[in-house]
Amino acid sequence: MKSTIKDVARLANVSISTVSRVLNNPEIVVPEKREKVLEAIQRLHYSPNALARGLIHKRTQTLGVLIPDISNLFYSAVLRGMEDAAHRSGNNLIICNTDNNRERRSSILSVLNEKQIDGVVWTSEPVDSGSYELFGKFGFPVVLAATHSLEFELPSVKIDEEQAAYDAAEYLIRRGHTRIGMISGPAADPISGHPRIRGFLRALDDYGIEGDAQSNIEYGKYHFENSYTAMSKLYAKLPDMTAVFASSDERALAAISFLHDNRIKVPDDISVISFDNTRMAGMSTPRLTAVAQPLYDIGYLAVAKLIGLINGEPPQQLRTYVAHSIVERDSVSDRGAGGF
Amino acid sequence: MKSTIKDVARLANVSISTVSRVLNNPEIVVPEKREKVLEAIQRLHYSPNALARGLIHKRTQTLGVLIPDISNLFYSAVLRGMEDAAHRSGNNLIICNTDNNRERRSSILSVLNEKQIDGVVWTSEPVDSGSYELFGKFGFPVVLAATHSLEFELPSVKIDEEQAAYDAAEYLIRRGHTRIGMISGPAADPISGHPRIRGFLRALDDYGIEGDAQSNIEYGKYHFENSYTAMSKLYAKLPDMTAVFASSDERALAAISFLHDNRIKVPDDISVISFDNTRMAGMSTPRLTAVAQPLYDIGYLAVAKLIGLINGEPPQQLRTYVAHSIVERDSVSDRGAGGF
Repeated sequence: MKSTIKDVARLANVSISTVSRVLNNPEIVVPEKREKVLEAIQRLHYSPNALARGLIHKRTQTLGVLIPDISNLFYSAVLRGMEDAAHRSGNNLIICNTDNNRERRSSILSVLNEKQIDGVVWTSEPVDSGSYELFGKFGFPVVLAATHSLEFELPSVKIDEEQAAYDAAEYLIRRGHTRIGMISGPAADPISGHPRIRGFLRALDDYGIEGDAQSNIEYGKYHFENSYTAMSKLYAKLPDMTAVFASSDERALAAISFLHDNRIKVPDDISVISFDNTRMAGMSTPRLTAVAQPLYDIGYLAVAKLIGLINGEPPQQLRTYVAHSIVERDSVSDRGAGGF
Repeated sequence: MKSTIKDVARLANVSISTVSRVLNNPEIVVPEKREKVLEAIQRLHYSPNALARGLIHKRTQTLGVLIPDISNLFYSAVLRGMEDAAHRSGNNLIICNTDNNRERRSSILSVLNEKQIDGVVWTSEPVDSGSYELFGKFGFPVVLAATHSLEFELPSVKIDEEQAAYDAAEYLIRRGHTRIGMISGPAADPISGHPRIRGFLRALDDYGIEGDAQSNIEYGKYHFENSYTAMSKLYAKLPDMTAVFASSDERALAAISFLHDNRIKVPDDISVISFDNTRMAGMSTPRLTAVAQPLYDIGYLAVAKLIGLINGEPPQQLRTYVAHSIVERDSVSDRGAGGF
C-alpha cells in the first residue's frame, strides 16, 4: 500500500498543509517540524505525489505530442529527438496519433488539456483554425515540428522545403541529367507537397531544362503504396528520363522497386534521389542518395523551444528553419558530359 | 486564464466539496445545488480537472511504456498497436526510452510512479530482479510486450522465438538449401538471441543437415551496423552457403548490402530469409521473405491485457504466445531438386 501525505502528517504529528509546505517551501517551516516531516517521509518511503504537485504548481512536467501516425518510419528519429530533449529537462511525452483527422485532433487536445499537460508539440500537419482556437481556449503553449504556419503566430521548427527540393533537382542537373521526373505527395499539401513541387520546377526553369508539372510529375498519396503506381505512370509518360526526384524515402524505395521489377538498373539506367534520409536510406540496395532533413534535431529543438515557452522565455526566432544537406550514397550516377 | 474548481464554487455559491460531488457523485447532491453547479461549469467553460480526478479515483488513465529505443524501426508498428488499444479505452501512453540501461529504467519507473500512471508495459528487455522489486514497491500492474519472464510471474505477449527460428530454417531446407548460415544478435540475449539460435540449430539437426554454432553463425550486436561485418565473416567461413537466416529485418538488409557490394545476387546466388517483418521488409529490393511477428497485435494485446489488470480482471493466460507466420516475397529461391 502506497503511503499518502495523510500518513506522513499523522506519523509526524503535524497538519497536511505543514507536510505540503515542507515539500514545496521548506524554508518557511520551522526546523524542528521540518525534521519530523522529513523523517516520516523517509520511514514511509513516501514519494511526493506528482499529481498533487501538479495541482499546486500547475506543472505536470508532461508534454503532449500530436503526430499523424507513429507507424510511419519518418517519425522514429523525430520522436527520439523529442524524447531526449524532454528527458534532459525532466519532462515526459504523451504521444498521440491524429491519423490526419480533424475530429481526432480536437479530441486529443481536449484530453491533453484535461491531463493538464504543460504544452503541445504539433507535428507535420498544417494548423487549421479550429485547432488554433482550441490552443487559445486551453491556454497551453504550442510548438510546431516539421511544419509551420504562415497564418498564425506559432513557433515552429522545420527545413526550408522549397529550397531543399530545389537543391535535389539542382544536384541531378549538375550531374548531367536533363530529363528528370518527380514522384510527389499530394500537390494540395501546403507543407510537404506544394513547396517541394515549386522548388523542383524552379530548378528546372533556372537551368533552362524542359519540363512542367503536367509532363514531369506524378503523385503518390500514401508513401510507398501508390508511389509504385505513380512511378509506373511517370515512366510511361517520360520514358527517356534518366533521373527521378522522390519526395520521401518510401517513395524512392517504391520507385526503385518498380524499376527493379522492370529490369531497369538504378543508378546505371535511371538515378534516384530521395528526400528525408530516414534510417532506411542507408540500408537499401542501392543505398539512397538523399536530401537529409535533420530529423532528430527537428524533434529535439521543437521540444526545447516548447520548454523555453513554458518557462516564460519567448523564442529567439518564431519560425526556425534548420539546415538540410545532401547525403551522397549510391543511387545517383553521372550522366553524359555534364557531371562535375 | 483557465477556471478552477474554486471559481465554479464561488459562482455557484456552494462549497468546493459540493462541486466535487457534482463531478463525481452527482446523484447525492440535491437537484437545486446540482443545477447551479452545472450552470457555473458551463458558463466558465470549466473542464473537470483530470489531475484532481486522478487524486480522487486514483486513476490517471495514463499508462507508461518502456522501450529500448524509439528510433529502432521495429517499434513503429508495436507502438501503433499500443496506441490504438490505449486510445480505444480512453487511455494515453507516456513512452520512455531505456537505452537498455538499468539505471535509466529505474529512474523511469520512479518518474512514472510519481506521475501515478495506472500501469506499465515493459517492452523487449529481460526483466532484472531490481526492476521486479520496483514493480512491487510501486504497486502498479506490469505487462511484458515482445519479451517474457520465466523467473517472475508477469503477464506477457510475444511469439515463440525458438519455433519461429526453427520454421525459418525449415523453410529454407524445404526449398532445397543444405548449406545455411545465420546472422544472429548476441547469443547471451535470452529473448531474441539464444532461443532463435537454438531453433535454427534444432532444425538443422532434425533434417540431418551439417552445421553448428561455430561454423554456421555470426553475430551482429547492433542490427544494421555490425551485421554487414558479420555477413562478411560468415561468407568467409561458409563460402559455399546458398542461404542465410537473418534474425531481424535490419540484419537481412545488411546481409543483402554486403552481397550486393560483392556482386553476389539475391536470391539467385544466395537466398536470405528475414525475421520480424517490419514495414521495411516489403519496401526493399528484393522484397524480403520473412518470419512475421504480429507486431501491431503484440502491442495491442499487451495494452489490452494491462487495462484488464487495472480493471481487476486477472489475465486468462499469464504468458500469451501469439502466432508467427512466414510471408513469402522475393528474397528466397529454390535450390537444386529439394524444393517442394
